[in-house]
Amino acid sequence: MKVIVLGAGLVGGPMALDLAADEGFEVTAVDVDESALAALAARGPVLTRVADLAEPSSVTTLVRDFDLVLGAVPGHMGFRTLRAAIEAGRPVVDIAFFPEDPFLLDDLARERGVPAIVDCGVFPGMGSALIGRAARRLDAVDSVLTYVGGLPEVRSWPWEYRAVFSPVDVIEEYVRPARFRQGGALVTRPALSEVELVDLPGVGTLEAFNTDGLRTLLQTIDAPDMKEKTLRYPGHAARMAVLRESGFFGTEAIGVPGGKVRPVDVTAALLFPMWKLRPGEGDLTVMRIMIEGRGGDRRVRYVYDLLDRFDEDAGITSMARTTGYTATMAVRLLAEGRYDRPGVSPPEYLGREPGCTSFLLAGLAARGVSYVERVEESD
Amino acid sequence: MKVIVLGAGLVGGPMALDLAADEGFEVTAVDVDESALAALAARGPVLTRVADLAEPSSVTTLVRDFDLVLGAVPGHMGFRTLRAAIEAGRPVVDIAFFPEDPFLLDDLARERGVPAIVDCGVFPGMGSALIGRAARRLDAVDSVLTYVGGLPEVRSWPWEYRAVFSPVDVIEEYVRPARFRQGGALVTRPALSEVELVDLPGVGTLEAFNTDGLRTLLQTIDAPDMKEKTLRYPGHAARMAVLRESGFFGTEAIGVPGGKVRPVDVTAALLFPMWKLRPGEGDLTVMRIMIEGRGGDRRVRYVYDLLDRFDEDAGITSMARTTGYTATMAVRLLAEGRYDRPGVSPPEYLGREPGCTSFLLAGLAARGVSYVERVEESD
Repeated sequence: MKVIVLGAGLVGGPMALDLAADEGFEVTAVDVDESALAALAARGPVLTRVADLAEPSSVTTLVRDFDLVLGAVPGHMGFRTLRAAIEAGRPVVDIAFFPEDPFLLDDLARERGVPAIVDCGVFPGMGSALIGRAARRLDAVDSVLTYVGGLPEVRSWPWEYRAVFSPVDVIEEYVRPARFRQGGALVTRPALSEVELVDLPGVGTLEAFNTDGLRTLLQTIDAPDMKEKTLRYPGHAARMAVLRESGFFGTEAIGVPGGKVRPVDVTAALLFPMWKLRPGEGDLTVMRIMIEGRGGDRRVRYVYDLLDRFDEDAGITSMARTTGYTATMAVRLLAEGRYDRPGVSPPEYLGREPGCTSFLLAGLAARGVSYVERVEESD
Repeated sequence: MKVIVLGAGLVGGPMALDLAADEGFEVTAVDVDESALAALAARGPVLTRVADLAEPSSVTTLVRDFDLVLGAVPGHMGFRTLRAAIEAGRPVVDIAFFPEDPFLLDDLARERGVPAIVDCGVFPGMGSALIGRAARRLDAVDSVLTYVGGLPEVRSWPWEYRAVFSPVDVIEEYVRPARFRQGGALVTRPALSEVELVDLPGVGTLEAFNTDGLRTLLQTIDAPDMKEKTLRYPGHAARMAVLRESGFFGTEAIGVPGGKVRPVDVTAALLFPMWKLRPGEGDLTVMRIMIEGRGGDRRVRYVYDLLDRFDEDAGITSMARTTGYTATMAVRLLAEGRYDRPGVSPPEYLGREPGCTSFLLAGLAARGVSYVERVEESD
């Protein structure tokens, strides 16, 4: 089976390698960056092709030669790349965290008769599948609370942060207002707001703050209280908020000596090099999901904990492992015909299908990414 | 007597008005900004002239028609403006906080036979005169510690700061390494370092951090321990350090979409509007100076406290009052012949001359700027 991986970046590259290790797949990775492709080809049996994925029509043409598409472009290109793949009538798994509503492509995907599994990373992603499964098991979901973050193992002042996915998407995450549900109502709060300290085993004290990470869960899961918060080392949110409120993320060009520039471009030029994981530096991914509800006459509480670390031997970041292996396992779900619902499927839809969540969890565990489940019941 | 005030900005304007209120002075204010001059002329009997003071030769020509010069240009223009005034052979008082060593102009001033009182603000300025006087009174000075800051009365997140003098000079103050003396040795530390909390009567808890504010005192006062720290509301230094260490004060142009720009210019374009005192908003100036030493067989400790507030009726900032009125009183010292030493005189030299410090203090007190002195002796 021929699989095309769109984007050979921080997560795309490791995903291509993971799929290429299966005998059944012939994997081709596509990127505009030749050196990224060369580095990838040197590490495993991955075919490569140089192409500018920013051009949707070339994406449609490109993917026609393949049986399955795995999308891993930066968020701002994500929606149109996904649409192009669906247009071509190819089953697709996508991890781009784009701002648009993926259900806008649902009609097109049904028309073309293809399954499109979107937002298939860690959260949204594996976490969403766990929430979908819990919702299936319960008679009613009362609340869902998720804490999730990707962090560097070594903390360097002032940001104590490395971007383990597209750094533009990190800033976008700090700008876009956070939507969540509280007491049955849809609530919007600024990103980076409501900072609280959270102690998590193995990582110590982190801070959690509002970001707009629930995405489709707001529509697909019927719970009066539902919230997602991003985890960072304490102090990060306040520093980023200072930048944002002072205008450093501004997207309107301002005139200064030397040109007319967007403040966010200057900020990116200064911060992104600081945010780059240095060779040999490790990252970790930490997530806790708490789902409460009723099952029969009992109150049930599901707690999922993930603490994953950089794979030093393979040189693969934890973010690539936790995000990418969820997506490659979803590719296998499609390849094996275990999931074939045409239309746009966020990962919570996989959670609704018996067997799918366990399949993802088993594949992740085989790759060392282990979710710990705790179920508490009371009556 | 004809006095020319170079610069009609935040401090220059109020100084021109203060001098113009004396019968003996005919005051002319010069600035490149016509609207600033028009506003000034509407408030008092001040003659105005539009000129670009960035051009030193025009400064030399300009000041020849006057008996006395008062310099109040931004720091980066300060040194060459002062030199131009001395070149013209006119006695001068200067408040520009320029980075160069003012003693580089000492030979020229002696040659021209003119007194040039430099750094004549609040600190360096009145504080330096108090230190000079204490040094004259003591047999030996052991230590000098100064805390000083200009603050807005209303604290607005995130900066809790308004620039009451040239904002470019504020950033310069956060960049230039701080030099002080410790245990007899000259020590250099990064600006914004060694943040400590300080409680001062009437203003509550502030933070104090290293800045390079001692200037000539490092050469002129013989004390093994001498330090100056800037006061701000707590948290300001850390935020500014984040910007500095992330490169936002960078003066090397970087290429970004739209042009090649210096990060500091973008930062200035974003922050300076936020740092502007809004109409009706008040500021305050707070300073504490502690001088310890021996006089005869006794240990003596001088403590000076200043807490000055915005003059709401006159619409004059506290920074203009505390800085500007020190300088206008120094102009009167020269005008009345109470001080006439040719050469460059930092304000601590005024402190060495009996009567000069009291003259300055009395003039300031008459304008509501009151220093409280406490002398503690022990044997």
